[in-house]
Amino acid sequence: MMHRPGHRRLAPVTDTTRAELEEIRASIDNIDAALIHVLAERFKYTKRVGRLKAEHDLPPADPEREERQITRLKALALEADLDPAFAEKFLNFIIAEVIRHHEDIRS
Amino acid sequence: MMHRPGHRRLAPVTDTTRAELEEIRASIDNIDAALIHVLAERFKYTKRVGRLKAEHDLPPADPEREERQITRLKALALEADLDPAFAEKFLNFIIAEVIRHHEDIRS
Repeated sequence: MMHRPGHRRLAPVTDTTRAELEEIRASIDNIDAALIHVLAERFKYTKRVGRLKAEHDLPPADPEREERQITRLKALALEADLDPAFAEKFLNFIIAEVIRHHEDIRS
Repeated sequence: MMHRPGHRRLAPVTDTTRAELEEIRASIDNIDAALIHVLAERFKYTKRVGRLKAEHDLPPADPEREERQITRLKALALEADLDPAFAEKFLNFIIAEVIRHHEDIRS
Protein backbone atom coordinates (compact mmCIF):
# COMPACT_ATOMS: atom_id res chain seq x y z
CA MET A 1 0.00 0.00 0.00
CA MET A 2 1.33 3.43 -0.95
CA HIS A 3 1.03 6.37 1.39
CA ARG A 4 1.97 9.89 0.45
CA PRO A 5 4.18 11.61 3.00
CA GLY A 6 2.36 14.45 4.75
CA HIS A 7 0.61 15.67 7.82
CA ARG A 8 -2.55 13.66 7.20
CA ARG A 9 -2.96 10.12 8.49
CA LEU A 10 -4.41 8.08 5.63
CA ALA A 11 -6.74 5.18 6.28
CA PRO A 12 -6.13 1.95 4.35
CA VAL A 13 -8.54 1.06 1.54
CA THR A 14 -10.49 -1.86 3.00
CA ASP A 15 -13.35 -3.95 1.61
CA THR A 16 -15.67 -1.85 3.78
CA THR A 17 -14.44 1.30 2.07
CA ARG A 18 -14.92 -0.25 -1.35
CA ALA A 19 -18.41 -1.47 -0.41
CA GLU A 20 -19.35 1.99 0.87
CA LEU A 21 -18.03 3.59 -2.32
CA GLU A 22 -20.01 1.14 -4.46
CA GLU A 23 -23.19 1.80 -2.48
CA ILE A 24 -22.88 5.58 -2.87
CA ARG A 25 -22.14 5.16 -6.57
CA ALA A 26 -25.28 3.05 -7.04
CA SER A 27 -27.27 5.95 -5.54
CA ILE A 28 -25.50 8.43 -7.82
CA ASP A 29 -26.38 6.22 -10.82
CA ASN A 30 -30.05 6.22 -9.77
CA ILE A 31 -29.98 9.99 -9.39
CA ASP A 32 -28.38 10.38 -12.83
CA ALA A 33 -31.12 8.27 -14.43
CA ALA A 34 -33.68 10.55 -12.75
CA LEU A 35 -31.83 13.66 -13.99
CA ILE A 36 -31.74 12.36 -17.58
CA HIS A 37 -35.46 11.67 -17.57
CA VAL A 38 -36.38 14.99 -15.96
CA LEU A 39 -34.12 16.82 -18.45
CA ALA A 40 -35.78 14.96 -21.34
CA GLU A 41 -39.12 16.23 -20.08
CA ARG A 42 -37.78 19.76 -19.72
CA PHE A 43 -36.56 19.82 -23.33
CA LYS A 44 -39.95 18.56 -24.54
CA TYR A 45 -41.47 21.66 -22.95
CA THR A 46 -38.83 24.03 -24.26
CA LYS A 47 -39.25 22.58 -27.76
CA ARG A 48 -42.96 23.42 -27.52
CA VAL A 49 -41.94 26.94 -26.46
CA GLY A 50 -39.55 27.03 -29.42
CA ARG A 51 -42.30 26.04 -31.86
CA LEU A 52 -44.68 28.63 -30.39
CA LYS A 53 -41.99 31.30 -30.63
CA ALA A 54 -41.15 30.37 -34.22
CA GLU A 55 -44.82 30.34 -35.25
CA HIS A 56 -45.34 33.78 -33.75
CA ASP A 57 -41.93 35.21 -34.61
CA LEU A 58 -41.02 35.78 -30.96
CA PRO A 59 -37.27 36.07 -30.18
CA PRO A 60 -35.53 32.76 -29.17
CA ALA A 61 -33.96 34.26 -26.03
CA ASP A 62 -35.79 36.10 -23.25
CA PRO A 63 -33.25 37.82 -20.96
CA GLU A 64 -35.87 39.08 -18.48
CA ARG A 65 -37.33 35.64 -17.90
CA GLU A 66 -33.80 34.23 -17.60
CA GLU A 67 -32.99 36.82 -14.94
CA ARG A 68 -36.07 35.78 -12.90
CA GLN A 69 -35.23 32.09 -13.34
CA ILE A 70 -31.66 32.60 -12.14
CA THR A 71 -32.79 34.54 -9.05
CA ARG A 72 -35.36 31.88 -8.18
CA LEU A 73 -33.03 28.93 -8.72
CA LYS A 74 -30.27 30.52 -6.64
CA ALA A 75 -32.74 30.90 -3.75
CA LEU A 76 -33.89 27.28 -4.15
CA ALA A 77 -30.26 26.15 -4.28
CA LEU A 78 -29.47 27.93 -1.00
CA GLU A 79 -32.40 26.16 0.69
CA ALA A 80 -31.24 22.81 -0.69
CA ASP A 81 -27.61 23.42 0.39
CA LEU A 82 -26.40 23.60 -3.21
CA ASP A 83 -23.88 26.25 -4.29
CA PRO A 84 -26.01 29.09 -5.80
CA ALA A 85 -23.17 29.92 -8.22
CA PHE A 86 -23.39 26.35 -9.50
CA ALA A 87 -27.20 26.65 -9.89
CA GLU A 88 -26.63 29.71 -12.06
CA LYS A 89 -23.96 27.97 -14.16
CA PHE A 90 -26.32 25.00 -14.52
CA LEU A 91 -29.23 27.12 -15.75
CA ASN A 92 -26.95 28.90 -18.22
CA PHE A 93 -25.73 25.52 -19.48
CA ILE A 94 -29.33 24.35 -20.02
CA ILE A 95 -30.44 27.63 -21.60
CA ALA A 96 -27.55 27.53 -24.09
CA GLU A 97 -28.87 24.15 -25.27
CA VAL A 98 -32.45 25.44 -25.39
CA ILE A 99 -31.46 28.43 -27.53
CA ARG A 100 -29.61 26.07 -29.87
CA HIS A 101 -32.85 24.05 -30.22
CA HIS A 102 -34.91 27.21 -30.82
CA GLU A 103 -32.53 28.32 -33.54
CA ASP A 104 -32.75 24.83 -35.14
CA ILE A 105 -36.55 25.07 -35.18
CA ARG A 106 -36.35 28.43 -36.95
CA SER A 107 -33.74 27.50 -39.51
CA MET B 1 -47.65 43.73 -35.56
CA MET B 2 -44.31 43.07 -37.30
CA HIS B 3 -43.91 40.23 -39.74
CA ARG B 4 -40.62 39.25 -41.24
CA PRO B 5 -40.73 38.78 -44.99
CA GLY B 6 -40.22 35.15 -45.97
CA HIS B 7 -41.78 31.89 -46.98
CA ARG B 8 -43.32 31.18 -43.56
CA ARG B 9 -46.76 32.45 -42.62
CA LEU B 10 -46.52 33.79 -39.05
CA ALA B 11 -49.44 33.52 -36.66
CA PRO B 12 -50.33 36.58 -34.57
CA VAL B 13 -49.44 36.54 -30.86
CA THR B 14 -52.84 36.19 -29.17
CA ASP B 15 -53.85 35.91 -25.52
CA THR B 16 -54.21 32.17 -26.10
CA THR B 17 -50.58 31.99 -27.25
CA ARG B 18 -49.43 33.96 -24.21
CA ALA B 19 -51.52 31.77 -21.89
CA GLU B 20 -50.05 28.62 -23.46
CA LEU B 21 -46.53 30.00 -23.12
CA GLU B 22 -47.16 30.86 -19.45
CA GLU B 23 -48.53 27.40 -18.74
CA ILE B 24 -45.51 25.67 -20.30
CA ARG B 25 -43.17 28.00 -18.41
CA ALA B 26 -44.88 27.13 -15.12
CA SER B 27 -44.13 23.45 -15.86
CA ILE B 28 -40.53 24.30 -16.73
CA ASP B 29 -40.20 26.16 -13.42
CA ASN B 30 -41.51 23.10 -11.54
CA ILE B 31 -39.06 20.88 -13.40
CA ASP B 32 -36.18 23.25 -12.59
CA ALA B 33 -37.03 23.15 -8.88
CA ALA B 34 -36.95 19.33 -9.10
CA LEU B 35 -33.59 19.44 -10.92
CA ILE B 36 -32.06 21.74 -8.29
CA HIS B 37 -33.15 19.46 -5.45
CA VAL B 38 -32.00 16.28 -7.20
CA LEU B 39 -28.65 17.91 -8.02
CA ALA B 40 -28.28 18.98 -4.36
CA GLU B 41 -28.76 15.35 -3.38
CA ARG B 42 -26.26 14.18 -6.01
CA PHE B 43 -23.56 16.53 -4.69
CA LYS B 44 -24.19 15.31 -1.13
CA TYR B 45 -23.29 11.82 -2.34
CA THR B 46 -20.29 12.93 -4.36
CA LYS B 47 -19.00 14.90 -1.36
CA ARG B 48 -19.17 11.68 0.66
CA VAL B 49 -17.22 9.99 -2.14
CA GLY B 50 -14.73 12.87 -2.03
CA ARG B 51 -14.21 12.49 1.73
CA LEU B 52 -13.75 8.73 1.37
CA LYS B 53 -11.25 9.25 -1.44
CA ALA B 54 -9.33 11.86 0.54
CA GLU B 55 -9.23 9.67 3.66
CA HIS B 56 -7.90 6.75 1.66
CA ASP B 57 -5.74 8.74 -0.75
CA LEU B 58 -7.67 7.58 -3.80
CA PRO B 59 -7.39 9.75 -6.94
CA PRO B 60 -10.17 12.41 -7.33
CA ALA B 61 -10.99 11.41 -10.92
CA ASP B 62 -11.87 7.92 -12.09
CA PRO B 63 -11.80 7.80 -15.92
CA GLU B 64 -13.00 4.17 -16.16
CA ARG B 65 -16.10 4.83 -14.08
CA GLU B 66 -16.75 8.02 -16.05
CA GLU B 67 -16.59 6.04 -19.30
CA ARG B 68 -19.19 3.57 -17.98
CA GLN B 69 -21.40 6.42 -16.73
CA ILE B 70 -21.30 8.18 -20.11
CA THR B 71 -22.18 4.98 -22.02
CA ARG B 72 -25.08 4.26 -19.66
CA LEU B 73 -26.46 7.81 -19.68
CA LYS B 74 -26.29 8.03 -23.48
CA ALA B 75 -28.39 4.83 -23.69
CA LEU B 76 -30.89 6.21 -21.13
CA ALA B 77 -31.02 9.49 -23.06
CA LEU B 78 -31.87 7.68 -26.31
CA GLU B 79 -34.75 5.87 -24.58
CA ALA B 80 -36.02 9.16 -23.15
CA ASP B 81 -35.74 10.95 -26.51
CA LEU B 82 -32.97 13.23 -25.26
CA ASP B 83 -29.94 13.99 -27.45
CA PRO B 84 -27.23 11.52 -26.27
CA ALA B 85 -24.53 14.09 -27.11
CA PHE B 86 -26.24 16.47 -24.69
CA ALA B 87 -26.36 13.74 -22.00
CA GLU B 88 -22.59 13.35 -22.37
CA LYS B 89 -22.00 17.12 -22.19
CA PHE B 90 -24.24 17.24 -19.13
CA LEU B 91 -22.36 14.50 -17.28
CA ASN B 92 -19.04 16.17 -18.12
CA PHE B 93 -20.40 19.44 -16.77
CA ILE B 94 -21.43 17.77 -13.50
CA ILE B 95 -18.19 15.79 -13.18
CA ALA B 96 -16.11 18.96 -13.62
CA GLU B 97 -17.93 20.40 -10.59
CA VAL B 98 -17.49 17.17 -8.60
CA ILE B 99 -13.74 17.09 -9.27
CA ARG B 100 -13.54 20.72 -8.13
CA HIS B 101 -15.25 19.68 -4.86
CA HIS B 102 -12.92 16.69 -4.43
CA GLU B 103 -9.88 18.90 -4.88
CA ASP B 104 -11.31 21.36 -2.32
CA ILE B 105 -11.73 18.53 0.20
CA ARG B 106 -8.10 17.53 -0.31
CA SER B 107 -6.57 20.99 -0.15
